[in-house]
Amino acid sequence: MAFLVFFASNLVLTLFACTITALIAPAAAGSGIPEVKAYLNGVDAPGIFSLRTLAVKIVGSITAVSSSLLVGKAGPMVHTGACIASILGQGGSKKYNLTWRWLRFFKNDRDRRDLVTIGAAAGIAASFRAPVGGVLFAFEEMASWWRSALLWRAFFATAIVAIVLRALIDVCLSGKCGLFGTGGLIMFDVYSANISYHLVDVPPVLLLGVVGGLLGSFYNFLLDKVLRLYNLINEKGVAYRILLACAISIFTSCLLFGLPWLASCQTCPPNASEACPTIGRSGNYKKFQCPPGHYNDLASLIFNTNDDAIRNLFSKGTDSEFQYSSILIFFVTCFILSIFSYGICAPAGLFVPEIVTGACYGRLVGMLIGSGSNLNHGLYAVLGAACFMGGSMRMTVSLCVIILELTNNLLLLPLIMLVLLISKTVADAFNENIYDLIMRSKGFPYLETHVEPYMRQLTVGDVVTGPLQIFRGIEKVGNIVHILRCTRHNGFPVIDEPPLSESPVLFGIILRAHLITLLKNKSFLSHPAPTGNDAFKQFSSEDFAKRGSGNGEMLEDIEFSDEEMEMFLDLHPFSNASPYTVVESMSLAKALILFREVGLRHLLVIPKISCRSPVVGILTRHDFMPEHILSLYPLLVRSKWKRLRIRLPFLSKIF
Amino acid sequence: MAFLVFFASNLVLTLFACTITALIAPAAAGSGIPEVKAYLNGVDAPGIFSLRTLAVKIVGSITAVSSSLLVGKAGPMVHTGACIASILGQGGSKKYNLTWRWLRFFKNDRDRRDLVTIGAAAGIAASFRAPVGGVLFAFEEMASWWRSALLWRAFFATAIVAIVLRALIDVCLSGKCGLFGTGGLIMFDVYSANISYHLVDVPPVLLLGVVGGLLGSFYNFLLDKVLRLYNLINEKGVAYRILLACAISIFTSCLLFGLPWLASCQTCPPNASEACPTIGRSGNYKKFQCPPGHYNDLASLIFNTNDDAIRNLFSKGTDSEFQYSSILIFFVTCFILSIFSYGICAPAGLFVPEIVTGACYGRLVGMLIGSGSNLNHGLYAVLGAACFMGGSMRMTVSLCVIILELTNNLLLLPLIMLVLLISKTVADAFNENIYDLIMRSKGFPYLETHVEPYMRQLTVGDVVTGPLQIFRGIEKVGNIVHILRCTRHNGFPVIDEPPLSESPVLFGIILRAHLITLLKNKSFLSHPAPTGNDAFKQFSSEDFAKRGSGNGEMLEDIEFSDEEMEMFLDLHPFSNASPYTVVESMSLAKALILFREVGLRHLLVIPKISCRSPVVGILTRHDFMPEHILSLYPLLVRSKWKRLRIRLPFLSKIF
Repeated sequence: MAFLVFFASNLVLTLFACTITALIAPAAAGSGIPEVKAYLNGVDAPGIFSLRTLAVKIVGSITAVSSSLLVGKAGPMVHTGACIASILGQGGSKKYNLTWRWLRFFKNDRDRRDLVTIGAAAGIAASFRAPVGGVLFAFEEMASWWRSALLWRAFFATAIVAIVLRALIDVCLSGKCGLFGTGGLIMFDVYSANISYHLVDVPPVLLLGVVGGLLGSFYNFLLDKVLRLYNLINEKGVAYRILLACAISIFTSCLLFGLPWLASCQTCPPNASEACPTIGRSGNYKKFQCPPGHYNDLASLIFNTNDDAIRNLFSKGTDSEFQYSSILIFFVTCFILSIFSYGICAPAGLFVPEIVTGACYGRLVGMLIGSGSNLNHGLYAVLGAACFMGGSMRMTVSLCVIILELTNNLLLLPLIMLVLLISKTVADAFNENIYDLIMRSKGFPYLETHVEPYMRQLTVGDVVTGPLQIFRGIEKVGNIVHILRCTRHNGFPVIDEPPLSESPVLFGIILRAHLITLLKNKSFLSHPAPTGNDAFKQFSSEDFAKRGSGNGEMLEDIEFSDEEMEMFLDLHPFSNASPYTVVESMSLAKALILFREVGLRHLLVIPKISCRSPVVGILTRHDFMPEHILSLYPLLVRSKWKRLRIRLPFLSKIF
Repeated sequence: MAFLVFFASNLVLTLFACTITALIAPAAAGSGIPEVKAYLNGVDAPGIFSLRTLAVKIVGSITAVSSSLLVGKAGPMVHTGACIASILGQGGSKKYNLTWRWLRFFKNDRDRRDLVTIGAAAGIAASFRAPVGGVLFAFEEMASWWRSALLWRAFFATAIVAIVLRALIDVCLSGKCGLFGTGGLIMFDVYSANISYHLVDVPPVLLLGVVGGLLGSFYNFLLDKVLRLYNLINEKGVAYRILLACAISIFTSCLLFGLPWLASCQTCPPNASEACPTIGRSGNYKKFQCPPGHYNDLASLIFNTNDDAIRNLFSKGTDSEFQYSSILIFFVTCFILSIFSYGICAPAGLFVPEIVTGACYGRLVGMLIGSGSNLNHGLYAVLGAACFMGGSMRMTVSLCVIILELTNNLLLLPLIMLVLLISKTVADAFNENIYDLIMRSKGFPYLETHVEPYMRQLTVGDVVTGPLQIFRGIEKVGNIVHILRCTRHNGFPVIDEPPLSESPVLFGIILRAHLITLLKNKSFLSHPAPTGNDAFKQFSSEDFAKRGSGNGEMLEDIEFSDEEMEMFLDLHPFSNASPYTVVESMSLAKALILFREVGLRHLLVIPKISCRSPVVGILTRHDFMPEHILSLYPLLVRSKWKRLRIRLPFLSKIF
């Protein structure tokens, strides 16, 4: 009977989360961190920041976490924060008539990008009550560009988060808010004033770090494989997605309910701080089929919120509370479940599952070492969580601060730093961090900070491809419409030709969105003559502001008469007259540095010798992708100039 | 008699610190943080990273801090760390025959810059035992360029610092290392598990932040004025510098010894944790002329190390230990002494004086509010230190983490974030942060991140000045020597002219240091013909590596025969063939973004229309300085396009 209730409620919740995600906003599936990271790098995935995605993300995340699936809430909260920030940045949502006039100041690429960075910081700050950790996470893992001013603005946002959280905890002191606020500002407090460790404790911790790194990279490897498998299933249609989610939910329910039978009952400790055994609330010492005065330690871990499970694992003075076999079973379960739960079509984070898994792993190591160490098992669990996450997510400073703010144990700091570095270094030898793997499997054209070594052998002229579409300074409307319809380019060079100048000269670059605005306005010229500054009178600054995601004007919506098609437009006042340019003989690596550091979308290539057309081509993000370059120069694949990484072919063969 | 010993020892120590600084390494004076910050921005001040400076900085800092002057040790430790890093980066010191072969890999601008950033992080980590705070300080305040990989490398360095410190504290547990290690890993532990504050406590904290911001900006204003005054004195010669330092030392000794007479004796608390009263050691409850069973509270603050004074001010449960008048006197004393001590010719930091001053200020406010608050006076002192430093140094995340790591009170975090932001915002309305003011008074050409608004009105062509010196691809030795002797430029465009190409074409840019290497090698050509790749055979990569500071080859050391002057050099293999270029009609603001983000030293300006010479000019850091631009276009001074800042002319009139 208990199993049926457990099973049915899990299935219904999962079904609900998955259905709304699949039908209403598919962009809300998964953690959202890779999407936000790609956006901050300049990749606009469709629909990731719409109001619809926001709603599904919030509701779906709540139901998915409640459905006993081993999924986290931190990733969805980062996405939620970024979503809210982006909607504010585009001035509200026109579609649902929620707009504010004063928000129009943020209607540009840079402010929106900054707001999204800040939103991501606030998300982590809220989910772990870690304001400083949130800022660092946004900067270390999410942001591709960084400004000093942005740092303190993000800090401002997370300070507000911390103050609001602190105030709500104050309001909820009497316990009327459910589980919220029970932990206080520090979620897993493991403070102890007299923690001491000496040189003998360092070797086991080093070992913990190395094995944690190996585990973390193995986790990434497996997750990547499972995600690719799931992608095949998910592509087949909505029904398959929902079926997959149901299968995982059924598997989870059976596993979680069946496993505690494997653990033997323990006698309650005589001086337990909580009721022992207990039923009907989240907490320690679950009864689960045990006689009075006894508890089932595996059930105490499983039939709890994830937060309480972590708190159990981290807690000090509980070295005898858990059996070796229970922790081992729980570790393997978490490891497998978190890999299989992530890819389903519902909002799902990775942080919390990794903390649980890592904490089990650390506690296992602590038990193996036993009384030979000055550190108790709870501290080993903290270190284990740190190095498992370090091995999978490869963050350093931000993870360190997040763990510090979660556990409030400053004295452990040197050891946490040590294991984070070791596990990151070990894992980096095998594969990339988990978010980069997910981004790659989604096919986002992410621009890396580092330049691939073979790019130093190429020049810009070697990779520029395709027919170049250019406009004259004063161009016929028909030509503009034709070129806009035929190509999907977003930027076009504007050239002044002999009637206007002595020889062809590059004037600037004009964006597709601005051209469409001009065409829609229809203030065309009957003969080709410059308009001067009067041209601006017919437009407000808002006409050329960055649109919200997805609601740009479409060229197809505008109709032109034959007469209009023969008229002219003066593009000069509306072009960007200071485009960044590189000479065609420029090293590709240096052009990429310029493109990436300045944060460009288009880079004009000009000829080295001046006799030809003033523009040779236009470089976009796709021209710098290793896939594109290697398809042009297949011999470079075998180049000795590439990153060294240990590869284990036998692993790839097995999976 | 006591006064004489106190006075004489202070004077001798100050004299020693000042003399070695003035005579051996004048670059070691002051905190060093502005110099390091300027270096990381691309400004090489002479001699700041020499071995000599390093030695003087260490010895001088120890003596200066010991001499009762109110100067800190954090700034000098940052400089020390940066110095060691830079010396490692240049492969040791050739002058003193300390070189390592394997360090040659770091002999380039970027690696040396990265090492210096890491060194600065390690400096703060060591001085405050704050490894995470050190990394954040280096990134928020010091670094001008930021890479994700640098973040974890800096984290690695500070982790080592933390582990070494922790190990040394373990070794020094028995107390055989003097005062080191007595505080444990956390210097000023104010942890309390049951600290609680509610909404009523917020308004006084807000007030604390606002007044702290005002005080901080006023401190910056005064310090700037005093430094400009001191600069006038210091320029007159070494004797004046030493005299100034002696005067400050005498003033300090008299003030510190005289002031405790103003405070009345207090009765010892019955349950004091330390001996009360006490003589002859650093600690609480100084006797100073009081009867047995009594102590002088002002003397307890003054006759202590700065660390112990801060610990006294921060400590909880001491609300009745200090009198209102004593704290007020100590606050005013610290405020004045720290301003007058900083500018003397000796290593002197600003962190510790500001923490002491701020802690007094906070405690004063705490006393004024009295029992109306849930926070004790010690916590007010922590908040006061935070907002005074926030008002003066304008850091946010890094200060927050440093204070967290100093005091180990995570529950106070929301309030610390709040006061830091308020004080920074208030102070930013009046002037810049203290390090920027010092840099400006030293005249470093620091490139700001933000672009001055009037730069959007100018094009690159508007600011390029001066006769341009260019070389042909194959150039006569005589011409090269002549141009190198006549100009002080460091980069020269290389142009291919008709015999080699159809029309004049820009080939690349060549550096002065590389030209000198080529001239020194003397493998000249008797007739103008290309050499090809054989040219490299006569050089090793080390010949073109970045030199250590100050030991570059001099052109004057090379002698040329008349015959050699008539020979030729092929510059092609040694030029940078991919220089960054901008078109002359490019907006100056956008060119500055390119220059700053990519981290350039030279930016070539090419003509818009191709009929003239292929290069119009070369932009360096100095061409982007507001001073340079405003001297060319004086009308822009009154432009409405400038930063808004509240100015108080009456203050400038008074000082």
